[in-house]
Amino acid sequence: MLTISLFAPSSFLVQTTPVLVMKFGGTSLADPERILAAIGLIDQAADEGFSPVIAASAMGKTTDALIDLARQLDADIDGPDRDLLLSTGEVVSCALLSAALNARGRPAVALTGQAAGIVTDQSHGRARIQYVAARRLRSEVAAGRIPIVAGFQGASRGGRVTTLGRGASDTTAVALATALDADHCRIYTDVDGIYSADPRLVPAARKIAQISYEEILEMAALGAGVMHARSVEVAGRNRVPIEVRSSFNSNPGTWIMHADQIDIETGAGVRAVVDDADVAQITVVGVPDRPGLAHSVFAPLAEDDISVDVIVQNISHQGLSDISFTVQRSDYEKALAATQLTAREIGAQQVTSDPQVAKLSLVGTGMVSTPGVAAGMFGCLAETGINIRGITTSEIRVTCLIGEAHLAKGARALHTAFGLDA
Amino acid sequence: MLTISLFAPSSFLVQTTPVLVMKFGGTSLADPERILAAIGLIDQAADEGFSPVIAASAMGKTTDALIDLARQLDADIDGPDRDLLLSTGEVVSCALLSAALNARGRPAVALTGQAAGIVTDQSHGRARIQYVAARRLRSEVAAGRIPIVAGFQGASRGGRVTTLGRGASDTTAVALATALDADHCRIYTDVDGIYSADPRLVPAARKIAQISYEEILEMAALGAGVMHARSVEVAGRNRVPIEVRSSFNSNPGTWIMHADQIDIETGAGVRAVVDDADVAQITVVGVPDRPGLAHSVFAPLAEDDISVDVIVQNISHQGLSDISFTVQRSDYEKALAATQLTAREIGAQQVTSDPQVAKLSLVGTGMVSTPGVAAGMFGCLAETGINIRGITTSEIRVTCLIGEAHLAKGARALHTAFGLDA
Repeated sequence: MLTISLFAPSSFLVQTTPVLVMKFGGTSLADPERILAAIGLIDQAADEGFSPVIAASAMGKTTDALIDLARQLDADIDGPDRDLLLSTGEVVSCALLSAALNARGRPAVALTGQAAGIVTDQSHGRARIQYVAARRLRSEVAAGRIPIVAGFQGASRGGRVTTLGRGASDTTAVALATALDADHCRIYTDVDGIYSADPRLVPAARKIAQISYEEILEMAALGAGVMHARSVEVAGRNRVPIEVRSSFNSNPGTWIMHADQIDIETGAGVRAVVDDADVAQITVVGVPDRPGLAHSVFAPLAEDDISVDVIVQNISHQGLSDISFTVQRSDYEKALAATQLTAREIGAQQVTSDPQVAKLSLVGTGMVSTPGVAAGMFGCLAETGINIRGITTSEIRVTCLIGEAHLAKGARALHTAFGLDA
Repeated sequence: MLTISLFAPSSFLVQTTPVLVMKFGGTSLADPERILAAIGLIDQAADEGFSPVIAASAMGKTTDALIDLARQLDADIDGPDRDLLLSTGEVVSCALLSAALNARGRPAVALTGQAAGIVTDQSHGRARIQYVAARRLRSEVAAGRIPIVAGFQGASRGGRVTTLGRGASDTTAVALATALDADHCRIYTDVDGIYSADPRLVPAARKIAQISYEEILEMAALGAGVMHARSVEVAGRNRVPIEVRSSFNSNPGTWIMHADQIDIETGAGVRAVVDDADVAQITVVGVPDRPGLAHSVFAPLAEDDISVDVIVQNISHQGLSDISFTVQRSDYEKALAATQLTAREIGAQQVTSDPQVAKLSLVGTGMVSTPGVAAGMFGCLAETGINIRGITTSEIRVTCLIGEAHLAKGARALHTAFGLDA
């Protein structure tokens, strides 16, 4: 470092203003009007004394339009071609944002992921950021320019453009915040923040002020798609505070931070009710119980690349056992066919299935220290007349499997019972 | 070179098939249907035993749409932002072409100008190619892949994306052909080739089979915009044969080559009649003649960045002279105002002007050795009843200034008189 610094004295400059990474999603850059709104937010952050660094997504439906073009050519586009094609969407956003800022006298510089030093592995279409060679970014910030970085993309060491997978502009933002030791990372989107339940299902849902990385990850795993899961992992590992907020209003958003940084809260220790209707259940009935039974059932599914979720196995009666599990609905038919084959091989009595089930979960780090959350959940569902068809838990989550028809009713009852209503 | 080769033995590989650079313009890639037609032409060239190397323009009106987006942001976009924005159009074309070729089992690789090694100076928006670092291209060709290179763009040595100016994908193609020592360079466009006159003006115009670089440059300077002038200069300097042909049919096109390679032709030595209606004329009348007069008139125009074309100064009578010149119509008002100011300063009697004039020219290398072309032209126009308001000549061109109203009539008469009619 010292040797290099001799030739680059600018790296000794003391950075006086904290870096704020601002990420604008597709809906926040959908048209010229939205782009101008984003410019206003960047201006405001600069006026507040931050050095803004921007991560930009492609405008609105650009990415879909590009994929559709390829489809019209009967080109099953993948690999480097697909990455290069899709990477252009974010570059357009960056150039426009930079031009608009420069035109307003706010010096900015548009950078592709590659130019910003985002180095990834070679997994085209789902590349992982290995590191950010942030020297260029640091010198732009030191020179008083606002770097506008194309999200969702980088380049392999061989210099080929890669993409991080859809929605991964969040990951770009967090990686930039980590590399630049940012004050925090602000994710602008089309919702106000993260809610204690899906407001479409639970009208009394309210915005959560603070939530931990672990809680968000549990919610993401359950299908609540506010933040890209990998970006939360990276943020958690590097303790980068994130604020998720709307670019359509100036309401405060939701802060995602380390559990030990979150204000001590009163209440039940339950942060949110999470629903997931994308579930199908398969049960193998009357299997002769013997060692290796679970392996026989699940190995064929793993070979078919089917993810299995909630697994319930009852205790053996007279040498016979039942094994029940859930899969995503898109995998239902394939999983059912594979399981029927297995059932014959292992001498099971029958296979029953239901493609219309749902998962209802309580999530909250406070649950660890709050006894009786699980019992309270089972009681509440029983009072509401909802039958529980399976249960799984983690340290900060309890999940019940129920019939899909009862999902809204159950979510509302739990939201009220655990004191989450607004 | 030897030292480098020791570490890159692939550069010793003997290339067995000749390289053919194929350039597809915007209309030839306007939609998926046209892109598939281009794929067919590339397939055909490969089947004919060529190693194709492609230079691709942006699809149809993409570039205009991008500029329009910037305009909606009130961003007077220029410099690096503009170049990065516009460069995405060609990258999209390249990725689509490459994907479609790969999907059809024809290995291809899409390359930005930067990835293809096109190094330019730093003049954003009108950069000049300094050289092509063709190692990557050569290794792709040697490996049997078809490089699809984004036209119109490169990168400065500092690594910033630059563009060559509009229409300059032709220049990219010629630079690639030069660097790869290509057999020739084929420019696909929406016209069949280069014509002996504008067919809209002269119905008897016919396609020219062969034409020299010098002739095309004279025609381009006169406003006949078939090929980008700089690309012809580069091709001429490196003796790269060019074929201009249509991607909409399989008609043979026009070959552009060195004069000494062109078949000896019979006829008048006149290759084409070229019209240009984008002309306005300004005359300073009754100027006291003295040394430095021309400088006084033209220096203010040069300062205003106005190009002056046909200049006519008559011989002084009684110490007074007239100076007449033409400008492009878009510069007319500015030029007139500047000249009126000058006229007062230098004591001229008056300034007259006419924004509705036109240039009519004969072009042909054979004219050098064919006496009487100019005289024949003046005679033909006189017989047609057209007044000549100014004359300029080069070795291979005679240009007459006439009233715009007479342009079509004059062009047809000259086309017939010089034996060019189909």
